[in-house]
Amino acid sequence: MRNRNPGQDFNKNRRPAPTPYQGKSRGKPEKKPVPSTAEPMERPSGGAQWLYGLHAVKAALANPRRKLGRALLTPRAIEILGSRLLAPVRVQTADPQAIDRILPPGAVHQGAALEAWPLKSRDLDDILADPRTEQRRVVLVLDQLSDPQNVGAILRTAAAFNVTAVIVQDRHAPPQSGALAKAASGALDLIPYIEVVNIARALDDLSKHGFWRVALTGEGDSTLMEAVSTGDIALVLGSEGAGIRRLVRERCEASASIPISAHVESLNVSNAAAIALYELRR
Amino acid sequence: MRNRNPGQDFNKNRRPAPTPYQGKSRGKPEKKPVPSTAEPMERPSGGAQWLYGLHAVKAALANPRRKLGRALLTPRAIEILGSRLLAPVRVQTADPQAIDRILPPGAVHQGAALEAWPLKSRDLDDILADPRTEQRRVVLVLDQLSDPQNVGAILRTAAAFNVTAVIVQDRHAPPQSGALAKAASGALDLIPYIEVVNIARALDDLSKHGFWRVALTGEGDSTLMEAVSTGDIALVLGSEGAGIRRLVRERCEASASIPISAHVESLNVSNAAAIALYELRR
Repeated sequence: MRNRNPGQDFNKNRRPAPTPYQGKSRGKPEKKPVPSTAEPMERPSGGAQWLYGLHAVKAALANPRRKLGRALLTPRAIEILGSRLLAPVRVQTADPQAIDRILPPGAVHQGAALEAWPLKSRDLDDILADPRTEQRRVVLVLDQLSDPQNVGAILRTAAAFNVTAVIVQDRHAPPQSGALAKAASGALDLIPYIEVVNIARALDDLSKHGFWRVALTGEGDSTLMEAVSTGDIALVLGSEGAGIRRLVRERCEASASIPISAHVESLNVSNAAAIALYELRR
Repeated sequence: MRNRNPGQDFNKNRRPAPTPYQGKSRGKPEKKPVPSTAEPMERPSGGAQWLYGLHAVKAALANPRRKLGRALLTPRAIEILGSRLLAPVRVQTADPQAIDRILPPGAVHQGAALEAWPLKSRDLDDILADPRTEQRRVVLVLDQLSDPQNVGAILRTAAAFNVTAVIVQDRHAPPQSGALAKAASGALDLIPYIEVVNIARALDDLSKHGFWRVALTGEGDSTLMEAVSTGDIALVLGSEGAGIRRLVRERCEASASIPISAHVESLNVSNAAAIALYELRR
């Protein structure tokens, strides 16, 4: 069996203990880290995060690109996840309260926490060079969305609609935290989450690969249905506060809106993404 | 000018000070209340909640059904909201940090907090007796959804697609907290949020009013497109964990699914609701 954890080392005394949670303070923020009352053994190793929730943990265990540490699981979670998936990791049995203590307050872990290192960002050109699928390809480009709940829900829905990749700007995207992975419900390990330095340049790359670039905004030139015909699509979404930045929007060939009531200014961004992906896959 | 606050009384010594925030511990929980370091004047009066965020505060100010208390606002928020909307309430100017202190940690208030009493639940029969609109009527029925982020996003999208009402079970729905109102971005004051004792009985009522009742599930008998033809629709959504309860599902004439990839078990419930509402309004 492949060893997923080369150089794994549980000697906590020689390793700075990171906070169990590294949410951003921008946007709708996550809970603040609290000092853990768990044993030192239960702190994540340097650079690792605690992922939690059955779907997120299961998907990380099944992802050969993941470097994994220990799993803290209730007997029921061990039974659900199964011995095959759990074989490469070190399993510690724990009661729900012990798992509560290592996670941010209120984390819904369903008896499962897994120490995991963030996935390395993949190269966009490699992904786009993959042979085409039967369907049109859809890439989502998130311009400075910072809320892990929204980005997680978008990843989940993107996986549900066979999106090729989700592109974010590395310095202005939620980190690959447990909260993001939980909201993504496993999708962080299912579809490429590509952290790029420059969104505008990524859009240039997409154009070179034949993608039609559409900005989804409140005041688009047309409805989404009209804006997209056939062929590969890069759909750009902006943050709820600032929208899509000018330099990013200028890279798009078209802008499109979802028709909504005049009484409401906008949709939640993950709901807008879900509607757009549904429309593109109908 | 109408006095919105009959019996308003700021004598805190004679009134138990509630916690500023009454999130539930079920589902994806909200942040825990922390002791406020604000002045006693800044605690909400008995039964009131602090609403926050410009959209939520603006919609509550504009809603004649709302009983309102004080507003704690930055000068910029006062300028944005305008003197006409603010006329009926007592305005206290505050800096952002002072508003931070009365709200749950991390609340994104945009310089606006408003003391407001929960809206009284409206009678379903009254709402349904209203003259028909040009569009088909759509009512959403949420069976024990407890996460205020999801329910708030659903309310927001429901308002965007002209939903007639959102029905929840009073004992198993998120309270009308600041977090719910913020996620709803004003929609809590735009469309009827009806708290009923018994969801199954509400579905019987909807049937008497000619509504076709459709359960949205992962394993529906048909796609949503096939399940809904014309006429008024009651769309039933279950919680992500437990789904729709058997007794509620038995009240539905049809069940429908959104077609998604086999690699993903389900969509986030607010994303599923958004897609369904978009499909019903296309």
